[in-house]
Amino acid sequence: MIRVLFSARPDLWDEYRDPLRDAFAAAGLSVDLARDHAPADVDYIVFAPNGPVSDFTPYVNTKLVMGLWAGVETIVGNTTLTQPLARMVDPALTQGMVEWVVGHTMRHHLGMDLHIAGQDGVWRNSTYPPLAKDRPVTILGLGALGEACGKALSQLGFPVTGWSRSAKEISGIRCLSGDDGLTMALRDAQIIVLLLPLTPQTENTLNADRLALLAPGAFIVNPGRGPLIDDDALLAALGTGQIGGATLDVFRQEPLPVDHPFWTHPHVLVTPHIASTTRPVSASQVVADNIRRVQAGEPALNIVDRAAGY
Amino acid sequence: MIRVLFSARPDLWDEYRDPLRDAFAAAGLSVDLARDHAPADVDYIVFAPNGPVSDFTPYVNTKLVMGLWAGVETIVGNTTLTQPLARMVDPALTQGMVEWVVGHTMRHHLGMDLHIAGQDGVWRNSTYPPLAKDRPVTILGLGALGEACGKALSQLGFPVTGWSRSAKEISGIRCLSGDDGLTMALRDAQIIVLLLPLTPQTENTLNADRLALLAPGAFIVNPGRGPLIDDDALLAALGTGQIGGATLDVFRQEPLPVDHPFWTHPHVLVTPHIASTTRPVSASQVVADNIRRVQAGEPALNIVDRAAGY
Repeated sequence: MIRVLFSARPDLWDEYRDPLRDAFAAAGLSVDLARDHAPADVDYIVFAPNGPVSDFTPYVNTKLVMGLWAGVETIVGNTTLTQPLARMVDPALTQGMVEWVVGHTMRHHLGMDLHIAGQDGVWRNSTYPPLAKDRPVTILGLGALGEACGKALSQLGFPVTGWSRSAKEISGIRCLSGDDGLTMALRDAQIIVLLLPLTPQTENTLNADRLALLAPGAFIVNPGRGPLIDDDALLAALGTGQIGGATLDVFRQEPLPVDHPFWTHPHVLVTPHIASTTRPVSASQVVADNIRRVQAGEPALNIVDRAAGY
Repeated sequence: MIRVLFSARPDLWDEYRDPLRDAFAAAGLSVDLARDHAPADVDYIVFAPNGPVSDFTPYVNTKLVMGLWAGVETIVGNTTLTQPLARMVDPALTQGMVEWVVGHTMRHHLGMDLHIAGQDGVWRNSTYPPLAKDRPVTILGLGALGEACGKALSQLGFPVTGWSRSAKEISGIRCLSGDDGLTMALRDAQIIVLLLPLTPQTENTLNADRLALLAPGAFIVNPGRGPLIDDDALLAALGTGQIGGATLDVFRQEPLPVDHPFWTHPHVLVTPHIASTTRPVSASQVVADNIRRVQAGEPALNIVDRAAGY
């Protein structure tokens, strides 16, 4: 009998209990899933922030801690965590992100907001908007999410540049890396999609200097993490028109405070951290598969590089 | 010297004169392009509605009439036109249509309007919206535009059904045809995209009976032609919630009259016939290529079937 501890908010237990049990059974695993095993008895931990476990010291026999979210910035710095940590890489989560990013990239590209706000009987048929091939898009971050979004946008005709800390090669994406590569990736880009992990190095990636590199009137799409953007610099660049619009799904404080200027800015769309959600059924299958691998002596998937922070 | 008559609104002459001359030169054609050749001297006619030519009888030596628009419903019934007629099939026009259809399909799929209208400080994070794979899309019309849109939506993960008058086979699209096929294509579809040509047979394709076949709350996207929809039936179905929303780019009368109820309906987005526009540079290349083919004794491309009406 494998003992799995579920440590997350109580409402998530209601959502995940049955899908996890179903996934364990489907994987042929005999699992005792609970929220209150004795620490020394726990083989695996399924983890999300704001649950009961914050000190991992007593979990001396735990082989793997599996996060339910793609981002691990709330746990990666926990010095009591000496066990291996896996991020959630869920095909359904990736697909959801692709759909959200494609949708909002197209919204900016097509200038939809002009028409959505202009249902006043005026026939605004400006002619010959640019095609996607003339709209360079840059994706910051080429993990599972950034790569999938970049490929989808490339297939739709956009010239896609991607930037990552370490060099990558991805078909259909002009891949750049390093500090010089970041400058090159941002210069004259018309739409920027932020899918970097949040680390001390990536905080404020889009600061005033870097926003100034973009094409005038560029659009920002942030489904990554709020602190990747210097909010004051963004508001200033929106004010001058250097940034033409922003769609922001993530924020330094969530829910975004009701008095934050993003809510009322005419060129900012706030969405409530919905770009992609871990879905219980598919995420439970990923968890079960990782346990099955470790039980079979195979390496776990999606292990976090604690030094890099993601 | 090949004599080409340009018959369209005067403002189009300003837009097309230079691109056409450039395209003829690039194709190695020696062309006298003008708006006032003697009818018997005219080898080819470039045509758009509301220009000087409506009686084609005196153009006894004209080998081909080439429309500038994808739709030919304003000319196909002209009984004086005995010369071959070509529709415009422009790769840039097709690409523009794909971008507009993908964008607005994603807008409905993601429920963007809820957030665009709700920038009021309320954090509306409904969980687990469906993925594209669980959102069946049906495209009515599988010409160059419908096929390209269907393939793009299929690549994004939507299950795509296409319907056309005559049977087709297109990879990635469940192709249906005929009257029974239309019923099957509409049944339980959640998003409908209208890209049928306008003919007496296709008028009011989406009538009350057919709207009732769709999944409750379905979305209608019409970048085709206005009369494909029975407007009163659509308004009634929006009223009951059977139709959850509509994005309409084309109308029985354009510009849409300022007092039409579509303008103010909370679940209708009116766009001003911008879904895709013929672009002078690429369209001129298509015109030049068709003249080059006919001059070389090859069959012209995109010839309209006058009996079918498109």
